[in-house]
Amino acid sequence: MRAWRPASCGIRTASLTPRRPFSITSTRPAGPKVNNAAELLARDEPADRVAVQGWVRSVRKQKRIAFAALGDGSTINSLQAVLRPEDAAGLSHGTAVKLEGEWKASQGAKQSYELQTSSVSIHGENDAESNPLQPKYQTPEFLRTIPHLRPRIPANALLLRLRSQVISTLTRFFNEEGFVQTHTPIITSSDCEGAGEVFTISSNDSKTSDQEPASENQVQVEHFFRSPKYLTVSAQLHLEALAQAVEKVWTLSPTFRAEKSDTSRHLSEFYMLEAEQCFIDDMESVMDLVERMLRAVAIDLKSSKVGKELIQMRCASEPAGGEHLEPSISADDLRTRWKGLAEETWRRITYEEAIKALQHGGFEVSLEDGLSAEHERFLASQSPNKTPIFVTDYPKNQKPFYMPQSTATPNTKGTSETAACFDLLVPDLCELVGGSMREYRSKELLEAMKSKGVAGDSLDWYQDLRKYGSVPHGGFGLGFDRLLCYLSGVGSIRDIVAFPRWYGRCEC
Amino acid sequence: MRAWRPASCGIRTASLTPRRPFSITSTRPAGPKVNNAAELLARDEPADRVAVQGWVRSVRKQKRIAFAALGDGSTINSLQAVLRPEDAAGLSHGTAVKLEGEWKASQGAKQSYELQTSSVSIHGENDAESNPLQPKYQTPEFLRTIPHLRPRIPANALLLRLRSQVISTLTRFFNEEGFVQTHTPIITSSDCEGAGEVFTISSNDSKTSDQEPASENQVQVEHFFRSPKYLTVSAQLHLEALAQAVEKVWTLSPTFRAEKSDTSRHLSEFYMLEAEQCFIDDMESVMDLVERMLRAVAIDLKSSKVGKELIQMRCASEPAGGEHLEPSISADDLRTRWKGLAEETWRRITYEEAIKALQHGGFEVSLEDGLSAEHERFLASQSPNKTPIFVTDYPKNQKPFYMPQSTATPNTKGTSETAACFDLLVPDLCELVGGSMREYRSKELLEAMKSKGVAGDSLDWYQDLRKYGSVPHGGFGLGFDRLLCYLSGVGSIRDIVAFPRWYGRCEC
Repeated sequence: MRAWRPASCGIRTASLTPRRPFSITSTRPAGPKVNNAAELLARDEPADRVAVQGWVRSVRKQKRIAFAALGDGSTINSLQAVLRPEDAAGLSHGTAVKLEGEWKASQGAKQSYELQTSSVSIHGENDAESNPLQPKYQTPEFLRTIPHLRPRIPANALLLRLRSQVISTLTRFFNEEGFVQTHTPIITSSDCEGAGEVFTISSNDSKTSDQEPASENQVQVEHFFRSPKYLTVSAQLHLEALAQAVEKVWTLSPTFRAEKSDTSRHLSEFYMLEAEQCFIDDMESVMDLVERMLRAVAIDLKSSKVGKELIQMRCASEPAGGEHLEPSISADDLRTRWKGLAEETWRRITYEEAIKALQHGGFEVSLEDGLSAEHERFLASQSPNKTPIFVTDYPKNQKPFYMPQSTATPNTKGTSETAACFDLLVPDLCELVGGSMREYRSKELLEAMKSKGVAGDSLDWYQDLRKYGSVPHGGFGLGFDRLLCYLSGVGSIRDIVAFPRWYGRCEC
Repeated sequence: MRAWRPASCGIRTASLTPRRPFSITSTRPAGPKVNNAAELLARDEPADRVAVQGWVRSVRKQKRIAFAALGDGSTINSLQAVLRPEDAAGLSHGTAVKLEGEWKASQGAKQSYELQTSSVSIHGENDAESNPLQPKYQTPEFLRTIPHLRPRIPANALLLRLRSQVISTLTRFFNEEGFVQTHTPIITSSDCEGAGEVFTISSNDSKTSDQEPASENQVQVEHFFRSPKYLTVSAQLHLEALAQAVEKVWTLSPTFRAEKSDTSRHLSEFYMLEAEQCFIDDMESVMDLVERMLRAVAIDLKSSKVGKELIQMRCASEPAGGEHLEPSISADDLRTRWKGLAEETWRRITYEEAIKALQHGGFEVSLEDGLSAEHERFLASQSPNKTPIFVTDYPKNQKPFYMPQSTATPNTKGTSETAACFDLLVPDLCELVGGSMREYRSKELLEAMKSKGVAGDSLDWYQDLRKYGSVPHGGFGLGFDRLLCYLSGVGSIRDIVAFPRWYGRCEC
């Protein structure tokens, strides 16, 4: 397309001396303001001259008239354009176009207004026939092989906007709560938490190495940082250091697990929201923070355009691609989820109480067993009104070294054999958040590290945090992509992450 | 500390049936509301009973009275507390405490109010003598060896708050501009852009491998994703895919370079802000976006508490740790930088004009040479009023495959031998932003990829973006940590990133 237009700020200089703005070489008059599809569709009065740009979602050519449905990702809804057949000649599914014309009351029933198109400009190439993404049902599994095209499905574009909106809400929420947003490192020295399920990094200077690789599936690597380094499995330890500088910190960062799991809830690369707060006396404060945060997200979502379109996606007879996102839930179930987050009271039960509830529900389970995914699902399903449920004070031997005994913090139900920790379970999805107080006593921390076999040079710095100005603190980690699954009713984390990575799979 | 307080939301249940809130076991009455130091210091009227928590920055014990300076990261300023000598006995530099008392007009000249402390609670351990972080001048080089403690220096805590504030401004800015914030992948299949200077990742299952490592400095690795995968050097290619779904996208993501560089401007891990926009006709739109964005950041900063404290840090005789951040600039220079971003007109010159200006300035340089850091510094220094300067239309052979000829976009000064690209140079720091139009024509892109030797399976997906609904688009990448250096006057990127990683160095 060659629609010349004035450069609004086109001041250029020669030899660093100021000069007049560029002269505009085109004789074409400036066109009407370009709206996005959502803006135009919201307009319920006619307009003589409007312009809109986007991609053709479908085109129907008749003898005397043609119709094109246009979308630009600003809404899952399509804008109907009426064209002269000759103007529609070059259009097919996927073509990027600019349309100009008149915004008029529609004759059809599907939308109240439509674009009577007077001018069509095609932006670039489109080979609709060979496009792997076709305007018909395609399985989620297939679509995961073309993540670079999949976001063009209106439902997937909506999920991109959902992610953006939730980030925005969280940024505002934590600002208002006085938390400082931080960037914690991705490359770390410690692999302690992941119990070996970490990615190791290396520079690939080895490409020029003389040495032969030991096998086809192995390469020689060099330690760029002198010793082995890993991709972080959690920002928590670093956040604890930063919290001792500014009291309350959070981050939304990528985290990694080299787990060979093949489930709808796990990826090798995913975003975690983690927060850490000093000067708190007990774990209730941490759970309160989690509650306020998720309520804020749900309240924002309920009243937003993104929220309305998520509901619409679950209602529609033509679900704009929502059918690709299996297993899907109904609009009513989605509303109930949001209401559960936004309004209802959430329960807090101890692990011991959870075990009793499971036994009462017919499960053969003892305190030592730990909770399986099936157990968690049962507990979450028992929660009335689809509310999340906190399970607290798990047996200490099931938990990482940094979690203190429950008795080390006040207002606790637990014992010296239980940890001051919690999981937040939500219906269907189960674990969404995990949090705890942190062992802030130097001696107790060192003992815990020794007994878990993680004491060593690489965590000396973490022990320092307890030696110098130690202070009671706690925090939590939220699986951010899981949260988006829960909010949207998308069943698999592989469909909510634009470019998902899991064992053996890393497209693009 | 054992300051029991009611759990505000402490509803617990036994066997999943609701129950009364916890009874409060402590008989201690609830204390006064806890303020942070910034809130309390802003209070210029007395108060009978206040509480504040934080870390002791210094303590001075006299026979009949003691003084403690307290900070909690909410401000670089210290809050002065007056204590009975016996209450100050356990306090030293770094101790975490809760102080309660009366907020009173001060006798001293340094601050108008002070805390007449009636109660002191020490939170945890503090071995001030063995603390590597001491309340005296310590070199930046030394402090980089203790990044877990360094943020406690008030100036470094301020830099954390600066980062948080700039992220918040940018989140708001891009929302208002209609951009969708996205999460692009960290693990990628392509290493094309970095020309070999990428990190390779592997799972460390090799730990249990029977095979001996080839040498002490090498380990055997397995391809978790079947073929070699890398840490991303730029989100751009993936952003381009997402832009074709929702038109305008941005991300603030970690990026990686396995470069063995040893400068104050490079790290192996750093944050890039990248944005991509479809349906734009020329590069002026991209530069306009960059300008609006940086203006928004500077305008917010100028009027903020963080901005005022950055100025204060550069003025103060006791610079709260600012002296650790060498080389530092004056308060006036910092104000001029911000004004240059917020208010002045920015110049846009072509590479050819830049070369002429350099020749005119006495440099022996030709069109073929490219711009060195020294050249960039000269060009940026020539810019009046410390404004940034755009240099556009570099020789095409100096630029990556995805940049089109200047003549492929309208309103251009360049030729078919130049690329439709720009760098934004700022005084002192030089390159801050790089951007360009992207080659959106399928055939031309493929030719460019072949001629640069990057065509191949791993970028087939990128070529798809030109085959199906291709559209003119462009974008930019901003070195986020460099921006923070520029805004704060911090001379080295190693001091603005909390846990910096560079060749041979990865502490914590």
